[in-house]
Amino acid sequence: MVLVATRNPLNMGAVARAMSNFGALHLRVVNPYEKAFREARSAVGATAVLRDAEECATVKEAVADCALVVGTTAIGNREIKHPMRSLDKAGPVLRKKLERERVALLFGSEKKGLSNEDLSYCHWLVHIPARAEHASMNLGQAAAVCLYELARGKRSFAAGVKRPFGSAQGKSASMETVERITEAMLDCLLRSGYVAARSEELAEEKLRRMVRRFSLDEADAEVFLGMMRKVDWKLGGKK
Amino acid sequence: MVLVATRNPLNMGAVARAMSNFGALHLRVVNPYEKAFREARSAVGATAVLRDAEECATVKEAVADCALVVGTTAIGNREIKHPMRSLDKAGPVLRKKLERERVALLFGSEKKGLSNEDLSYCHWLVHIPARAEHASMNLGQAAAVCLYELARGKRSFAAGVKRPFGSAQGKSASMETVERITEAMLDCLLRSGYVAARSEELAEEKLRRMVRRFSLDEADAEVFLGMMRKVDWKLGGKK
Repeated sequence: MVLVATRNPLNMGAVARAMSNFGALHLRVVNPYEKAFREARSAVGATAVLRDAEECATVKEAVADCALVVGTTAIGNREIKHPMRSLDKAGPVLRKKLERERVALLFGSEKKGLSNEDLSYCHWLVHIPARAEHASMNLGQAAAVCLYELARGKRSFAAGVKRPFGSAQGKSASMETVERITEAMLDCLLRSGYVAARSEELAEEKLRRMVRRFSLDEADAEVFLGMMRKVDWKLGGKK
Repeated sequence: MVLVATRNPLNMGAVARAMSNFGALHLRVVNPYEKAFREARSAVGATAVLRDAEECATVKEAVADCALVVGTTAIGNREIKHPMRSLDKAGPVLRKKLERERVALLFGSEKKGLSNEDLSYCHWLVHIPARAEHASMNLGQAAAVCLYELARGKRSFAAGVKRPFGSAQGKSASMETVERITEAMLDCLLRSGYVAARSEELAEEKLRRMVRRFSLDEADAEVFLGMMRKVDWKLGGKK
């Protein structure tokens, strides 16, 4: 990650924080506003990424040991002479490259972005798809979005997931339980007068279909059955 | 986008800016720190999103007209009782849902995230894959990353095409109706003695999560609500 001519210490801190979040630990800053860089580094909660940031005099120096240099840009009025990819299209290309080589992602200053000279060091450009009416993103947010895309599907992050989707909803309820629920509900509905005795049959069919649409899992079904039975009992049904 | 108990006006502004970038224009804030909300709104460069933000007293109110409610969380120490998806896996599901219906994405306060009560209004949770050593993201950056994922591949950014609305058939139940069902059921359970008054709060959260797992559609939800109300009335509840 290379920040060129960044002005705002808060933005530097934000970029560094997102880098730390997503495991991109190597930050270089080119020609930063000295005061901003000092402030950002000494801020409470400054990340190791920021403390270890290397300061470079030029973009050339900052990207010297990289195999691929990609500039970031909002699509503004400037005539773009580079090949450009949207971030979602660039993601797979960058991730593949990053497996083996060092890639530099350049961000320009908050006001002006990257200069034509900065851009001349880039192989190609990436932009984050955004609304035409408001395409200019905050630097820290743009960096976070890029880093998220670069880290997409990263295996090492998956280990932190304690609970895969679906484990809360386990085995489906057996039809036996579902049918018991249907019976208990029907009894409640008859006792409460929601279903008139003469239309019981039709109501039962409707209810049966509906309860099945709930797609209950085993645990929920047992709980739900217990609820309906208790309510039914209170209404005078059998235990 | 729903911000719950946000403290920092800069974060509110950052979230609103990212929303504006990615075309998510509807912001609701629940129980914000008043001063922060005022400051954020009156800041130079405050976006239309922030000016038009609706203030809600409760999460319940903020998600009432939504078909799907998804909470965001860093994977911390707290025991998670909800199904959870990583953002990249959640993206396709959310984008599909958003084609036809309103989805609420909840962000908690900077310090504590979403409370268990807040979470009980959620169908499931999403987390942004990050380093285990530093998983806690800045609020504005986390929001930007989520919004980028939601807008992924959005045609309108490329061509300015508006998506057609789907048919109303099979539409998910609104959270307002689902919450009413929860209330009616809870009342039944209290009146029947299934739930003791002293454990009402915990039971309410559990029940709320369970009813959301039923993934009711609009028609079934109305019928189910009618049933529960009638049963509740028979048990001595109000009409």
